[in-house]
Amino acid sequence: MARTEIEVLRKAMREHWIALCVIPTADPHGSEYPGGHFEARKYLSGFTGSAGTLAVSADWAGLWTDGRYFLQAERELFGSGITLYKMGEEGVPSLEEEIARRLPERGILAYDGTVVNRKLSQTLRSIAEKKDGRIRLIDLPEEVWEERPARMAKPVFALEACYAGESRKEKFSRVRKIMKREGADLHLVTALDDIAWLTNLRGSDIACNPVFFSYLVLSMEEAWLFVQEGAVSGDLERELLEDGIRVRPYERFFDELSPICRFKTVLADSGRVNERAWSQIRQTRCILDKPNPSAVMKAVKNPVEAENMKKVHVKDGVAVTRFLYWLKNNIGRRPVTERAAAAYLEACREKGEHYFGPSFPTIAAFGANGAVVHYGMEGEGDLLAPEGFLLVDSGGQYLEGTTDITRTIALGPLTAEQKRHFTAVLKGMLALGDAKFLQGCRGTNLDYVAREPLWTMGLDYQHGTGHGVGYFLNVHEGPNGFRWKLPPEGAETAVLLPGMVTSDEPGFYLEGEYGIRIENLLLCREAERNRYGRFLEFEHLTLVPVDLDAVDPGEMDERDKKRLNAYHERVWEALSPSFSGEELRWLREATRAI
Amino acid sequence: MARTEIEVLRKAMREHWIALCVIPTADPHGSEYPGGHFEARKYLSGFTGSAGTLAVSADWAGLWTDGRYFLQAERELFGSGITLYKMGEEGVPSLEEEIARRLPERGILAYDGTVVNRKLSQTLRSIAEKKDGRIRLIDLPEEVWEERPARMAKPVFALEACYAGESRKEKFSRVRKIMKREGADLHLVTALDDIAWLTNLRGSDIACNPVFFSYLVLSMEEAWLFVQEGAVSGDLERELLEDGIRVRPYERFFDELSPICRFKTVLADSGRVNERAWSQIRQTRCILDKPNPSAVMKAVKNPVEAENMKKVHVKDGVAVTRFLYWLKNNIGRRPVTERAAAAYLEACREKGEHYFGPSFPTIAAFGANGAVVHYGMEGEGDLLAPEGFLLVDSGGQYLEGTTDITRTIALGPLTAEQKRHFTAVLKGMLALGDAKFLQGCRGTNLDYVAREPLWTMGLDYQHGTGHGVGYFLNVHEGPNGFRWKLPPEGAETAVLLPGMVTSDEPGFYLEGEYGIRIENLLLCREAERNRYGRFLEFEHLTLVPVDLDAVDPGEMDERDKKRLNAYHERVWEALSPSFSGEELRWLREATRAI
Repeated sequence: MARTEIEVLRKAMREHWIALCVIPTADPHGSEYPGGHFEARKYLSGFTGSAGTLAVSADWAGLWTDGRYFLQAERELFGSGITLYKMGEEGVPSLEEEIARRLPERGILAYDGTVVNRKLSQTLRSIAEKKDGRIRLIDLPEEVWEERPARMAKPVFALEACYAGESRKEKFSRVRKIMKREGADLHLVTALDDIAWLTNLRGSDIACNPVFFSYLVLSMEEAWLFVQEGAVSGDLERELLEDGIRVRPYERFFDELSPICRFKTVLADSGRVNERAWSQIRQTRCILDKPNPSAVMKAVKNPVEAENMKKVHVKDGVAVTRFLYWLKNNIGRRPVTERAAAAYLEACREKGEHYFGPSFPTIAAFGANGAVVHYGMEGEGDLLAPEGFLLVDSGGQYLEGTTDITRTIALGPLTAEQKRHFTAVLKGMLALGDAKFLQGCRGTNLDYVAREPLWTMGLDYQHGTGHGVGYFLNVHEGPNGFRWKLPPEGAETAVLLPGMVTSDEPGFYLEGEYGIRIENLLLCREAERNRYGRFLEFEHLTLVPVDLDAVDPGEMDERDKKRLNAYHERVWEALSPSFSGEELRWLREATRAI
Repeated sequence: MARTEIEVLRKAMREHWIALCVIPTADPHGSEYPGGHFEARKYLSGFTGSAGTLAVSADWAGLWTDGRYFLQAERELFGSGITLYKMGEEGVPSLEEEIARRLPERGILAYDGTVVNRKLSQTLRSIAEKKDGRIRLIDLPEEVWEERPARMAKPVFALEACYAGESRKEKFSRVRKIMKREGADLHLVTALDDIAWLTNLRGSDIACNPVFFSYLVLSMEEAWLFVQEGAVSGDLERELLEDGIRVRPYERFFDELSPICRFKTVLADSGRVNERAWSQIRQTRCILDKPNPSAVMKAVKNPVEAENMKKVHVKDGVAVTRFLYWLKNNIGRRPVTERAAAAYLEACREKGEHYFGPSFPTIAAFGANGAVVHYGMEGEGDLLAPEGFLLVDSGGQYLEGTTDITRTIALGPLTAEQKRHFTAVLKGMLALGDAKFLQGCRGTNLDYVAREPLWTMGLDYQHGTGHGVGYFLNVHEGPNGFRWKLPPEGAETAVLLPGMVTSDEPGFYLEGEYGIRIENLLLCREAERNRYGRFLEFEHLTLVPVDLDAVDPGEMDERDKKRLNAYHERVWEALSPSFSGEELRWLREATRAI
């Protein structure tokens, strides 16, 4: 017996003569974490992970998700009648392959063109055409989801120069230079983080992501910013107008786009722009289908942003370290649940100035829960015991930037094997942080450095080693990243440049037993420039002790130890001024050289 | 004043109203080392390196070559009036960019369609069209090169099963399976090494490359092999006919190709097939432009080939080690030139069974010559002195496979810096050879491992870390390789598979002072298969001592030493049965643990 929500969906499909429908995890802007209104995939499937695509036919339903969520999806889909497709596993067909197989001849394939980007839409269309079928663009969830939440519409606010480091006029001018070089009259931006970065505006329409629902169209002289009613105050609207930005109603976007674009050459990214918007610009003179110029620009933090991010990591480091001290001193003395631990950490962060909230929902995973890579606790979660590991992955949003840190903490005695695994993960994290490389390298060139200690042991972690991080923006931000597989379309494999911030988070997960992940953010910077080229290196932004109770020094060679001790010395120097008494003594011990 | 040959070429260009002509380093088969008949670029420019493209207009001439040849090209082009374009250097325009800039409006761009592949031809054509110009396919060198050598036409011979490991019928059947899957009726193969591998035939039409001039067309039932007159004996022709291969005259290829292909779907690689042949198949029903299936097939050595390559490396290792012993014992005692050293090495190899000659011209580069990456000595070369380094890069062709090895030998006392550089190169070579990785990795994922010791010191070598190696075939063979830059079209970045043989040859070059390169061939093999996937590793095929006189143990950590000692122990075990007396004692010392 299938899940009720799926049965209701199937009824609606029958009414519309739809053979197969696709429900992605997406909003009209290709956001990684769509807000409640756009969580149809979660509502329909019951799978609560942040990434996944649901496809449903009359007699079958399938959900595709990646390695981070295999265990969680297995658990959450149990009994739902939905088949789990583990993406990237050998022999597992892709969404496209399975749809091509299951769509009947002359069948109708349906999806919501507002939340499916042009690129995927093209793929789906060609699958349907091969079957002599056709595409139907329809928001099916709207018909079956009775208590669908409304779209968020929180106030939009401007980021001051001391945080943004570059005015929106300067940013526009840089983008226009590229538009000119490419021969574009207009540039359509639909990605919310790109819009927020370009306009130096922030909002809070998506939990943990300080963005706001909007579309931006840029011409060589002016700009149109489509925002929700009431989101932009009169004062802000006037300020924007002075910078050549006309504020327009969000709901008018699809109607006004077509006349704005008529007879123009438009620069737009078919991997980000939704099918409905694309169909409006298709009638124009010419579309240059390229990545948004702002994608690389915002990834390269300017000097003000970089300095702020260094500062914010001291503030964030103090909060996380205070949490670690509390945790180490309370486990075994009083009952602490996963939820309580996460709450205490949040309370520590809240004491920090300019704190806006978490940059993603905190993962506090005890014991076997740690092996669920993106564990989402239910209720209070498990009660912590003075044994094994607690994995805590968390981050904060501050005016001075975004943080993302994972520490795995020994709550009690560990086995030799646990220490061996922890030390291998730590060695990989430190080795990657210590890499020195010629400019031109991509994350694919360096990912092996983090995996090497595990691969040598015949072990692996089934996720990328790192992702780009925004500045008081999304905690996951392209186009930089560390991964070894060449992903489709070069995602997260951009050339690494000074100013880019990338997470360095190898891990190890033993299903049913424990999970280990250690994550620092790395700032790329120039090391030296000589006849061989420009050498780059990383600076650890994250400043929080790594739990020495979990380290087996016997597994480390001199270079490994030197790296760890140098890092801990930096942590001590940065954080010690903020501590005193017992906490300070503990910090000294926690950052001691081994 | 420009070089005479260029002036004669310009005269011919004027007669044909040609504004700009391109002379690549190529034969009709895209061979890396075109034979004498096809060395027009060398004849015209005077640059003798193996790679380079010459372009000439009325008032300008340019030559593009890569990092291996920068120094050599600078020297050889001096006074020629030809500008050197260092490929891959910052700010250096590409051939295409420069042609686009220099071709006048409505100008005629000329090249020989028989030696330019379809892909490059398309690029050149579109450049000309943008200038409202046009393309003229003409063999200009034929008009200006009076003593042009004839094309080689040596006898073709069959490789026995104990060397090939798989019959030509089995190979054809594997290719036909792929043709069927792709929907191809025909497959056109023009790459000489692919043809030699597919047919289990060898020749000697190109120096050091045991291939023969030929074209192969494969249908689902039969095959046409176009070979030069007299190259295939009557007996061999009958043997081939039994396997469904019709031998046809090489000269008839362009005429017969078109009728064979009519109304057929043809699988062909536009990056390998020359423009003239492509224009014949263009009239057919459909062309599937894909890499030759045989490219990956021949890169993955079958068990017989792999075992033979292990054996041949003992034989080759004995020869090279004997040479090292002789060198170490004669330097400073009698005069030895670079040429004499190379000749002695060749004499050592010639004693080996089934030896067919060098796999490429030996590089024996003393002192500063070693910094010229692909140094080609003139006459006797320099006289060796009992000081500094001699870099020897050489290889052999045997029935049991192809070898390629570089050793850098201390001829006398070294400076601390020389030892430091040597040790860094050695550490990189050993670390890459010791890599363990999940199947799916490409050379781009692992290249950093070999460069890491140098990059850490702010140093680099300006060439790839390794290339694929054929089986009694070309010493440079795609599609596998180790490099960190993403090359155009993914060349040499194929997924590494068990059975592939790749060179591991980091180096360091100090212009005007010395060059260091240490090269072993690595055989990829399975390490273990578990829940995380299939882990692969390498086995050093090359078995020759690394000169311990040049190693600074203080620069090596325990892991580096363990790797070196394990390698030397293998060398000792494999080679010692072939030595006795003084040589044996020397070998024991040369392979001692440090």
